[in-house]
Amino acid sequence: LDWLGADGSLDAPVDPADQADALAAVLDRLGVARIEAFVGASYGAMVGLQFAARHGGRLAKLVAISGAHRPHPYASAWRALQRQVVALGRTEGNVSHALSLARQWAMLSYRTPEEFARRFDEPAECVSGQVRTAAEDYLAHCGRRYAARWCSTAFLRLSESIDLQRVDPAAVTVPTTVVAVAEDRLVPLADLQALVEGLGGPARLRVLRSEFGHDAFLKEDAAIARLLRESLGEVA
Amino acid sequence: LDWLGADGSLDAPVDPADQADALAAVLDRLGVARIEAFVGASYGAMVGLQFAARHGGRLAKLVAISGAHRPHPYASAWRALQRQVVALGRTEGNVSHALSLARQWAMLSYRTPEEFARRFDEPAECVSGQVRTAAEDYLAHCGRRYAARWCSTAFLRLSESIDLQRVDPAAVTVPTTVVAVAEDRLVPLADLQALVEGLGGPARLRVLRSEFGHDAFLKEDAAIARLLRESLGEVA
Repeated sequence: LDWLGADGSLDAPVDPADQADALAAVLDRLGVARIEAFVGASYGAMVGLQFAARHGGRLAKLVAISGAHRPHPYASAWRALQRQVVALGRTEGNVSHALSLARQWAMLSYRTPEEFARRFDEPAECVSGQVRTAAEDYLAHCGRRYAARWCSTAFLRLSESIDLQRVDPAAVTVPTTVVAVAEDRLVPLADLQALVEGLGGPARLRVLRSEFGHDAFLKEDAAIARLLRESLGEVA
Repeated sequence: LDWLGADGSLDAPVDPADQADALAAVLDRLGVARIEAFVGASYGAMVGLQFAARHGGRLAKLVAISGAHRPHPYASAWRALQRQVVALGRTEGNVSHALSLARQWAMLSYRTPEEFARRFDEPAECVSGQVRTAAEDYLAHCGRRYAARWCSTAFLRLSESIDLQRVDPAAVTVPTTVVAVAEDRLVPLADLQALVEGLGGPARLRVLRSEFGHDAFLKEDAAIARLLRESLGEVA
């Protein structure tokens, strides 16, 4: 089940609230009145908060990992520049390379200086008269892999969608666990603390440490599994 | 007196050591055997460290503000992507817009999330079917202003130059004051602490706090003036 807009066929702004309503419609279609838990990470956590706020009666508990009720202004500025890189490649007919570049910028927002210092601590080299820094091959690889699988419309509209996120925490009254990563530079701990303080129902905050920053939910399997067992234990 | 490469006429890698040697040659030409102090901020601090390491006998003291003996690997990755944005615009014939975009990315590295949260905390808006975030007008203004004054060759070669920085701190034996800004995400405090610990002569570290991050040396006039009076007091 993909997000609205993930196939690139929808070229219009998509609010995370639209995603939550679409999920509710899918549940209707499946004849599922109520679900035991919504577990979402990053954009999935944003949609989870919308689902809880808009369809709370259909949900028993929410686990929101590294996603907040609002985007941070600095992260929004970052994403806006990514979108402009794609727009530059679009108007100039080099969209795949531009999409790869935008993904590479995204990687810098997902990861941390600490990881880069550990993995890419080699001096820059001069190659064919140009300076090449240690992380470039890795980033280019990530960019190419992404550009081969995604189209620019999907990238632009889902990137915009993150910046449209706006949930009143008080409207979320289902029991909620918020998972934050202290090193996350995209979704800062302070924003998730503010979210938890404002939630309208039983709420708890769990804070992980990880040099993978925002990507911790993809990399720290053991810690995430522990948190899910703790949060969903009563479900199983 | 501009940096080598600042006018765009030099399309080759420029090491900060080259800048230091060029300054030494200028002093030769002026008949100045020895200078009382070298005060440099950001790239100027990098060149100052090179000057002290390579021409220490001609220098009585160094003040290095927000510039280190080496680039941080994460900051190098960031600059490498800026250069790729310019390269994209160059091959596609839209170099001024690409240079503006690269500058906007640079602004994100100079400033802090704290400043953006204070100044640009408005919800994103939909304008002509596209999402526009609160900081975009400001960033575009900064980018255009920069692109009107700089050419892409100067940008690329001076950006590369930062990534070529490499000084052995032990080779700097003149009395040195290093000024760090705790919020600087481009030149992290930890790197300047390592620099001070490794310096070969009398050394001291002064740490400022500023929501302007790496740009504090341009914005915190009073604090910088205080530090310069303290560091250079015996000169006057």
